[in-house]
Amino acid sequence: MIFSPEEYVRRIAKVRARMAEAGIDVLVEADPANMNYLTGYDGWSFYTPQVVVLAMDGEAVWIGRGLDRGGARLTCHMAPENLVAYPDHLVQHPTNHPMQFVAEEMARRGWDKGRVGINDDCFTFSPRARDTLEAALANARLVAVDLLVNWVRLVKSDAELALMRKAARTVEGMFAAYYAHMRPGVRQCDVAAEIIKVQVAGTAEGGGDYTTPIFMPVGEQTSASHLTWTDQIIAPDQTTYLECAGVHRRYHCPLARTIHLGPPPQKLLDMDKAILEAMDRALEQVRPGNSCEQVEAAFRATLAKHGLKKESRIGYPIGIGYPPTWGERTASLRQGDRTVLEPNMCFHMILGMWQGDWGFETSESFRVTETGHECLAAVPRGLKAIV
Amino acid sequence: MIFSPEEYVRRIAKVRARMAEAGIDVLVEADPANMNYLTGYDGWSFYTPQVVVLAMDGEAVWIGRGLDRGGARLTCHMAPENLVAYPDHLVQHPTNHPMQFVAEEMARRGWDKGRVGINDDCFTFSPRARDTLEAALANARLVAVDLLVNWVRLVKSDAELALMRKAARTVEGMFAAYYAHMRPGVRQCDVAAEIIKVQVAGTAEGGGDYTTPIFMPVGEQTSASHLTWTDQIIAPDQTTYLECAGVHRRYHCPLARTIHLGPPPQKLLDMDKAILEAMDRALEQVRPGNSCEQVEAAFRATLAKHGLKKESRIGYPIGIGYPPTWGERTASLRQGDRTVLEPNMCFHMILGMWQGDWGFETSESFRVTETGHECLAAVPRGLKAIV
Repeated sequence: MIFSPEEYVRRIAKVRARMAEAGIDVLVEADPANMNYLTGYDGWSFYTPQVVVLAMDGEAVWIGRGLDRGGARLTCHMAPENLVAYPDHLVQHPTNHPMQFVAEEMARRGWDKGRVGINDDCFTFSPRARDTLEAALANARLVAVDLLVNWVRLVKSDAELALMRKAARTVEGMFAAYYAHMRPGVRQCDVAAEIIKVQVAGTAEGGGDYTTPIFMPVGEQTSASHLTWTDQIIAPDQTTYLECAGVHRRYHCPLARTIHLGPPPQKLLDMDKAILEAMDRALEQVRPGNSCEQVEAAFRATLAKHGLKKESRIGYPIGIGYPPTWGERTASLRQGDRTVLEPNMCFHMILGMWQGDWGFETSESFRVTETGHECLAAVPRGLKAIV
Repeated sequence: MIFSPEEYVRRIAKVRARMAEAGIDVLVEADPANMNYLTGYDGWSFYTPQVVVLAMDGEAVWIGRGLDRGGARLTCHMAPENLVAYPDHLVQHPTNHPMQFVAEEMARRGWDKGRVGINDDCFTFSPRARDTLEAALANARLVAVDLLVNWVRLVKSDAELALMRKAARTVEGMFAAYYAHMRPGVRQCDVAAEIIKVQVAGTAEGGGDYTTPIFMPVGEQTSASHLTWTDQIIAPDQTTYLECAGVHRRYHCPLARTIHLGPPPQKLLDMDKAILEAMDRALEQVRPGNSCEQVEAAFRATLAKHGLKKESRIGYPIGIGYPPTWGERTASLRQGDRTVLEPNMCFHMILGMWQGDWGFETSESFRVTETGHECLAAVPRGLKAIV
């Protein structure tokens, strides 16, 4: 077990408090990050339906595919009778669906009535899953309680922060590999391989893990936000950026930096200067009591002074993540988001400036402290010229 | 562009034929593998809603987040007016949803009536996405046409097979790294790092790519199917298996093999013998005209002679994949699946035997030929003892 039993007890108590507020009797949670948060379950099995069911008392119950029960036994903290497997003929079948089984198991436990909370906007809970559950739970009412557990995850415990700090050490190593291997004449995939090797190995203090892949565009590709790498040979005098995360036991520390392979053009130097100044102003606004939109407003105002603007949000909360995202999907550092910052919330402030045929990125993963902020990773923030 | 324009024309013609059969006027496709198949679009952007909309004539239309339009421009083959971006304030917002924008864009093109096909059991199309689209398309009827494009993908073109063969060369290299680095006294994550380094770099003939992570359990962890790796130090006299895929430009070649670190125990030798024999019998049944269930029946009958049985399916089709799965989610090699094999279908036959506290895996990725089958990767099939 990665955390003490008490850590899970505290998490579940917080989730139940929110369930009570929302008038929810039973929560059916399909998001793998939330399942991990509630039970410790960790397996790459979320391509088939699986859930954690949490009622207002008793242990949580994991329900998944038969061949994944072994993984649940090795990673969850619950009693064996609360690790329940459905048979394999339900998997990817034209007419059967695992949610039929989930409903039957809920009925067996008396959890097939009242208000059943579901996530209505979750990668791992399809329309067909909801339809099947709804039809099979004739006496219950399904209620969308999107992100209920995600909001509880927003404030980190000290035990969680310790894992994120280990992830920060890994991401520092990934940038060292980027700076060491990104050179003209090399294939993009060969540079990416060196960086990801560090991501997976981690450091001597803690191993690395899988996550969303690294984004490492070169040249015109930097004008796009979510390209990974290709096998093209890197040309000289190109801009490239790396956005990636160190991960330790599913906890993330993302980071982004930009390189120019040669003497940087003036427009890139100007962008670097503007963004670093705007980032300073934004980070100064990070303190308990301030809102997400206040942080973004400071960024935007500073950027405007430089004649620049950015349409997309500048950050999101981080912690546990499973592909396809390491973001927690709750608050956003953007206009209109009045979420109030509290100590031990953690965000990735990511400043991506994608222009017509070029781009620039820098970022910091930070913790909200009692009085301000603490950047998790220590990598010099500015544009790096490799000449 | 990875493929010729003619390749996309052929794909779209096949998809439209199936749309006509299903009485569908417009297809709204959210599965990233299907989006890639129809347009070439390739970006790690599927954690926010995005679709390809295909009517019965004209070009397909990509609709995605503003900051991903740059990636669409660099990877898709369509005209700029058919790459449509929605504004960022719709992303992960409590009340707005990108599907409102998708519906408006469809209306603008006159595609907001008739029967609109959607995928109802897809990772990237949530219940909320469907609800929003349904409400916004008041004059249309949403019809679930799950896996319509996936079924077209089942038979590969020669151009696709060429990419899968490059992926096969990469997976061979990954197993060479596994055999070279898997040793007692080393951390699991350090072995995984060496294997994934090869996965990302690929070979001199073609670069590697990201995918679902490698599964590399050691010891008791082999009793589970979807554990990846930890930072534990590998003990002597343990069983370990590796299940992973080589990838080239999103095309996959998965493979699995088992190692014992020391002289293998008799039960493992017996399992190896039984599975290899059963695999031979199953592969003998692979030929055009035979069904998926015939292949599985030959496996099961042979296994029974050895007093063994396997509950889960023994294979699935492969080709384009995005995490969380490299499977195509259509046919399964299992009882009751009467899908008839045709030349150039490609499957991963994966024989995972998860016992109480140990396990064994071996597999082959194969192409159905005119007369039988062709294994894509060349890695000796049996248990490997490293002493």
